[in-house]
Amino acid sequence: MRQSVALHHASRLVNHGPTVLVTTEHAGRRNVMAAAWSMPVEFTPPRIAVVVDKKTFTSELLQASGRFALCLPVPALADLTYRVGSESGRDIDDGGDKFARHGIVVFAGPELGLPLVEGCCAWLELRHLPEPHSEQAYDTVFGEVVSAQADARVFAQGRWSFRDDNVQLHTLHHLGGGAFAVPSRVVQATLRAD
Amino acid sequence: MRQSVALHHASRLVNHGPTVLVTTEHAGRRNVMAAAWSMPVEFTPPRIAVVVDKKTFTSELLQASGRFALCLPVPALADLTYRVGSESGRDIDDGGDKFARHGIVVFAGPELGLPLVEGCCAWLELRHLPEPHSEQAYDTVFGEVVSAQADARVFAQGRWSFRDDNVQLHTLHHLGGGAFAVPSRVVQATLRAD
Repeated sequence: MRQSVALHHASRLVNHGPTVLVTTEHAGRRNVMAAAWSMPVEFTPPRIAVVVDKKTFTSELLQASGRFALCLPVPALADLTYRVGSESGRDIDDGGDKFARHGIVVFAGPELGLPLVEGCCAWLELRHLPEPHSEQAYDTVFGEVVSAQADARVFAQGRWSFRDDNVQLHTLHHLGGGAFAVPSRVVQATLRAD
Repeated sequence: MRQSVALHHASRLVNHGPTVLVTTEHAGRRNVMAAAWSMPVEFTPPRIAVVVDKKTFTSELLQASGRFALCLPVPALADLTYRVGSESGRDIDDGGDKFARHGIVVFAGPELGLPLVEGCCAWLELRHLPEPHSEQAYDTVFGEVVSAQADARVFAQGRWSFRDDNVQLHTLHHLGGGAFAVPSRVVQATLRAD
């Protein structure tokens, strides 16, 4: 049920603060980590900031390749999300990587060919916008979205639709210590607008 | 039930991506706006990034005063949140402000004296960390938390506790168009850690 999302709707995918899996690939090496800290910074062009510790393997691959992807995990991936956020791909010394270690199935991103995690509910590929000062001082990395996709059962026509019949596709929002809130209830302001 | 939150736990308050009300005050003028786009960038010292359009009245007061506050609204404040995110304090020309217009009750922040919105579930005061380039290029404003408080019925010992018996104190996560997701369900990774 994976469908393309118009780029002017891409910021909606992360507007509500989900935890993301950051994937990277460079010269045959690849990695995946979890990041609770990301946010859109611009609708058009769609730009996102994400905090990636400059000491991580992800940062190394991101800086070397100039690209990264964000995948939005769902409740069934809570364990995996917590694990890949708690270990470094650098520590895997048998020639494997975190994808192999955890049996993570990926597909290739449509624009940049980045490894995107199967079973997530949304996927974005981004070109890195180098900002040495923000990266150095705040570990804050900026990127511009060049492809966006979502599972049409939970995101369609530019909107999330969190319902009782699709709870398995809701996003995860890290509370700390491996506890994730799931945004399963929705309230609508009466002063509605689009 | 307002209690002080240790500063090393302050990032937890916004770790899961809630929409916030940004309040500012300078030389007798004050304002409140909604921001869906914020994230922690550092645990210690606790630092947060928030996107504030440089053309807004909030930006003007923030830049002039060097401080701002974040208040986390709850479901009963969904209408108010959407309203203060859809109008400018600059357009109120009768000598009033958005607080007066909407009957918003405030109390003074403990460190900086900023107007904090009653009825929210958490409150942070921040000193502005001037970053002219990030502000100009990405509307991204950095701040360091100098006070943090939360309603102890939903946040205690450094942790959110979203339960069925405190749904009126859960956070709001903007999906767009005035629809807010509420993180009322929690999943726990089995690989638990603190």
